[in-house]
Amino acid sequence: MGRIITIGREFGSGGRELGRRLAEELQIEYYDRELLTEIAKHTSLAEEYIRNVVERQPHSLLPITIGRSFTYVDDYAFKQAQAVYQAQSKIIRELAEKSDCVIIGRCADYILQDKKPLRLFVYADMDSRVRRCMERRSPGESQTEKEMKKQIQTVDKNRARYYEFYTGLKWGDKLNYDLCINTTDVVIKEIVPAIAKMLG
Amino acid sequence: MGRIITIGREFGSGGRELGRRLAEELQIEYYDRELLTEIAKHTSLAEEYIRNVVERQPHSLLPITIGRSFTYVDDYAFKQAQAVYQAQSKIIRELAEKSDCVIIGRCADYILQDKKPLRLFVYADMDSRVRRCMERRSPGESQTEKEMKKQIQTVDKNRARYYEFYTGLKWGDKLNYDLCINTTDVVIKEIVPAIAKMLG
Repeated sequence: MGRIITIGREFGSGGRELGRRLAEELQIEYYDRELLTEIAKHTSLAEEYIRNVVERQPHSLLPITIGRSFTYVDDYAFKQAQAVYQAQSKIIRELAEKSDCVIIGRCADYILQDKKPLRLFVYADMDSRVRRCMERRSPGESQTEKEMKKQIQTVDKNRARYYEFYTGLKWGDKLNYDLCINTTDVVIKEIVPAIAKMLG
Repeated sequence: MGRIITIGREFGSGGRELGRRLAEELQIEYYDRELLTEIAKHTSLAEEYIRNVVERQPHSLLPITIGRSFTYVDDYAFKQAQAVYQAQSKIIRELAEKSDCVIIGRCADYILQDKKPLRLFVYADMDSRVRRCMERRSPGESQTEKEMKKQIQTVDKNRARYYEFYTGLKWGDKLNYDLCINTTDVVIKEIVPAIAKMLG
């Protein structure tokens, strides 16, 4: 059986680390930023530009109900975001076709639904996420815990908007995932072998 | 490490079967109705009576905010329900002390929180739950799918009320569980070995 694992994750939950370690443990491919690099190659758009577009919602003023009927909208930024999403979807499908893999975010669960991927969602309580983010600050970063919390909320809000815009589904709603993993007070490294055993 | 596994579950999700099979696979104790029998022995209340009280919310007209301040309430049925809950909590703690086990429902996740049980929540989409319930009807039962759906909603509403009343937490909210398992289109028997491998 092909193993395609998609991972949705709350910011600061360690979902990306979990995905990376899981791919290592299962010896399958892993994609997140790399995926964007691939997209950049295919669309001739600069990687940084795409990352910016992709991380933000397609159009901040566009109501979802209208946003989903593309013909009603004539907006350059919106069309750009659409193009990036389409290119990205194509790449995700190609990669999943090529070999077993773990894909982080990017609506991969939805894009690959016909392949019946194992859809994980990784989450944790706010205190635990703030703690995780504070520990991983780069030397240049100096956010307070309060600022970090705000940043986490903003990132998650954007992720939720992005996901809901393209899938019509509620981001983080457990019904959209096969398995939801709580990483509150958990050392990611320690739980990965157990998860891999389950999926292996 | 002691393994105490608590399972919350939506009606029709197969959570009870999952728990029973998981206990078998891990060769540990399993409690659900048996637990009530134990309670009956300790409290000298008839098992059937307790089951009825426990399955319903403590007092149907009592707002939760008032209900949690026991001193404001003087109501026989409410006091009865409290007594049953207390007896039940005591038994659950005793059983968890005695040996590793799987405990279904009954707020065991909350009652045993100091023992840090592994808290599972089992859920599925409504169609899948209706299908599962229809397949398991006893020969005497003749509900239509529509009636079954209504019954599922009623049972879950009562479970949610019961859980929220005694724990102050939202039943089914993924933050209250370590692992949430979606059993939509899943054959329980087939996924249990994998879950057991993870927990073993």
